Amino acid sequence: MRFGLIFRILGALILFLGLMMVFPILFSLYYRDGDLRALVLSAVITIAAGAFLFVFFRRMAQEISHREGFVIVTLGWISAAFFGSLPYMLAGVFPSFVEAYFESMSGFTTTGATVLAGMEGVPRGVLFWRSLTHWLGGMGIIVLSIAILPLLGVGGMQLFKAEVPGPVADKLRPRVAETAKILWQVYMLISAAETILLMLGGMSLFEALCHTFGTMATGGFSTRSASIGSYDKAYLDGVITIFMILAGTNFALHYQAFTGNLRAFHRNSEVRFYWMTLAGAMLLVTLVLRVETYETMAKAFRYASFQVTSIMTTTGYTTADFERWPSFAQYLLVLLMFVGGSAGSTGGGMKCMRILLLLKQGRRELSRLIHPHGVIPVRLGGKVVSGEIIQAVWGFFFLFMLIFVLASVAMALLGLDIISAFVSVAATINNIGPGLGSVGPMDNYRSIPLIGKWILIFCMLVGRLELYTVIVLLVPDFWRK
Amino acid sequence: MRFGLIFRILGALILFLGLMMVFPILFSLYYRDGDLRALVLSAVITIAAGAFLFVFFRRMAQEISHREGFVIVTLGWISAAFFGSLPYMLAGVFPSFVEAYFESMSGFTTTGATVLAGMEGVPRGVLFWRSLTHWLGGMGIIVLSIAILPLLGVGGMQLFKAEVPGPVADKLRPRVAETAKILWQVYMLISAAETILLMLGGMSLFEALCHTFGTMATGGFSTRSASIGSYDKAYLDGVITIFMILAGTNFALHYQAFTGNLRAFHRNSEVRFYWMTLAGAMLLVTLVLRVETYETMAKAFRYASFQVTSIMTTTGYTTADFERWPSFAQYLLVLLMFVGGSAGSTGGGMKCMRILLLLKQGRRELSRLIHPHGVIPVRLGGKVVSGEIIQAVWGFFFLFMLIFVLASVAMALLGLDIISAFVSVAATINNIGPGLGSVGPMDNYRSIPLIGKWILIFCMLVGRLELYTVIVLLVPDFWRK
Repeated sequence: MRFGLIFRILGALILFLGLMMVFPILFSLYYRDGDLRALVLSAVITIAAGAFLFVFFRRMAQEISHREGFVIVTLGWISAAFFGSLPYMLAGVFPSFVEAYFESMSGFTTTGATVLAGMEGVPRGVLFWRSLTHWLGGMGIIVLSIAILPLLGVGGMQLFKAEVPGPVADKLRPRVAETAKILWQVYMLISAAETILLMLGGMSLFEALCHTFGTMATGGFSTRSASIGSYDKAYLDGVITIFMILAGTNFALHYQAFTGNLRAFHRNSEVRFYWMTLAGAMLLVTLVLRVETYETMAKAFRYASFQVTSIMTTTGYTTADFERWPSFAQYLLVLLMFVGGSAGSTGGGMKCMRILLLLKQGRRELSRLIHPHGVIPVRLGGKVVSGEIIQAVWGFFFLFMLIFVLASVAMALLGLDIISAFVSVAATINNIGPGLGSVGPMDNYRSIPLIGKWILIFCMLVGRLELYTVIVLLVPDFWRK
Repeated sequence: MRFGLIFRILGALILFLGLMMVFPILFSLYYRDGDLRALVLSAVITIAAGAFLFVFFRRMAQEISHREGFVIVTLGWISAAFFGSLPYMLAGVFPSFVEAYFESMSGFTTTGATVLAGMEGVPRGVLFWRSLTHWLGGMGIIVLSIAILPLLGVGGMQLFKAEVPGPVADKLRPRVAETAKILWQVYMLISAAETILLMLGGMSLFEALCHTFGTMATGGFSTRSASIGSYDKAYLDGVITIFMILAGTNFALHYQAFTGNLRAFHRNSEVRFYWMTLAGAMLLVTLVLRVETYETMAKAFRYASFQVTSIMTTTGYTTADFERWPSFAQYLLVLLMFVGGSAGSTGGGMKCMRILLLLKQGRRELSRLIHPHGVIPVRLGGKVVSGEIIQAVWGFFFLFMLIFVLASVAMALLGLDIISAFVSVAATINNIGPGLGSVGPMDNYRSIPLIGKWILIFCMLVGRLELYTVIVLLVPDFWRK
């Protein structure tokens, strides 16, 4: 473990994060809401801390080991959330550090769970920073560093694998830095398109950018307390629904679409599964809402499609108080939380790819009972999936369940009722945000006890980095030798 | 598929079931509660139906194929529950067939979920039959047939495997009929001991037998509406707690203990896991109850140990209204539902063995991340567990979750609130009985809508036969060729 190297890379990352604080400063200068001092101070502290680490540790290396990769990425996210919480602290938005850190981690991990009681009183520079953390965390702050900081002189493959784990890695180009650059370009291009469409719907540049960040990162922070529901415009609901779907789709396929290969979407079995699950859930919820809640089919579809998409892509925007919906719709939404978007997207959850592989393997086990001596491979898109990948997916699934159970038991021990304990962990480990019970769509995470907030912060981080990158650091064996 | 052979074996099973109805008739003669006609008629119909099938289909065979085994066992349980519901129907205990069938299936599968509004008004002959179905189903009605009906002239290995699936089969003797006989002898011996101890505590022979059946089969039917809580005797609570623990322990180990090898318990890693989980959960719940619910440690321990054991062994007896306990205790009880007893016991759930293997494999996947090129086997009791067994356990786990999710979504669609939908399925697929919400310890399953009752009947059956035996019949491929 070369700690000098680790700190140098962390320094570069923090330095870069500090430079990003220029954008909220611009909005602060424009709106003059009184947060200029706090933002400038945050930027100065962050840049200084990053520059110090980068200059003080001069160790260079051509390649990072996979163990160092885990450490850099985990520490990178922990420290990004720390420096990202400075604007909240210095602007005096929260009474204590844990709340600022919660909001910051929720931003970077694209969870969107908030401890703000209301957004309307918060200076807009700070709000812009809050949404920007989504956007930076969505495609991956470390992936971004790899793309634009070749001065580090490291290949970054281990960093890439640790931050974008996924069951099957998409390498668009042989060089990792190039792949990272392409992914960010596609991300920016689609984000620009959404911003323009939102402005055409009547949003200001500030609102359009903030909501674009929340959509494209599948984050969910809004500039308004009532989220997208406060606009109450079918056009905006529709635009955001479509871009949430795009954000939950593998970005490698978007890149292929830009290069003219539109059939790439249809050929990808994970995306087919993702779209069909989404469509099926929309249909079921629409029908139930039509019968029990809304008087017209159009209205039922509008709210059902938005909310189903928002939850399954793990965005977390709301246009309706779904806690008043029939229990079937609520239950389905909770289940969709665990499915999530497709691999290689900005969506959280367990990812469609894993669910699909588990379903295929479950069916294979049934076939094996009928043909005990037959060899039945699991196929995905025509190719045989190796036993090693399937075992890794099982391992992931079980570890996910285990962490989920331990965290939610702990939340119950802190006094939360069963539904709130269950859903608060589901909504954070899957990086969604709003849940049910005391963390429902009309509530926030302010009332969660102190220790509970730290547990949920851990869940957000562990969920965003897909477990292993973080958990492996907690295994004593990792630090031996 | 030799249907002649299948019907002949089913005939023998039904015939045997009819003969068992002699025992409730004896209690009916003694108590004269007015159920004699119903019980005699039930016995006559069942014996006649069984004899007809047995005589009409004369096909004989030396061995049954594994596909035929699945069909015989599934149909065997479905028809046992049908003929077992005759006493309820003919005695007029329930208003409709579905309720009688629900109660009967709940009995045979040792679930113990009841649709009776109160036990006190029901004739005691019928109540005795109700408890006897537990005892017959606990060790396995088909295992019993194999043991005492060698006249069938079949080896019965396929039947044994289909009814007692478990991840790793215990064969005590080379001949299956002998293994089955030994298991039943051990079962009877421990049952006799419990009956005597319960009578020493003041129960009548009738009550002692009924509650022994409910304990040893990990069933949970009581002769009183308030279950074991109505006796309010620490001695009875203690005796039943101990025998529930024994009933949830692998019976092959009890046999070894009887032959003098007492260390067998300690050497078995599954039983160690089972006892430690039980002890840990008792401790946690005792502490929480001491702080929040009961004024003395003794009282907290008495109720905590009984309820934790009752739920984890999947018995379902109650001595306290645990819906009034802190949410942490309730949540822990719901989780324990899924763990269940050890393999080779009468307990339901996923079984400790499977949970233990999943935990070990999860840990292995973590090690693999640290040592990517190392070969790390999963061991159980010193022996390496083959990859095939582990894959089968994964397949089981996922299929279990899938059925669970589909069934509970359906229950929510029928209008149950989220907790009731979730827990009613958890309490039936794991063969427990009482749950939370509208199926809480002080409620019953009467209020569940008609379709919901059928779904839960399916869950009980599927849970008792550990999924595959039933599910495989629903795969079209099974019936081809």
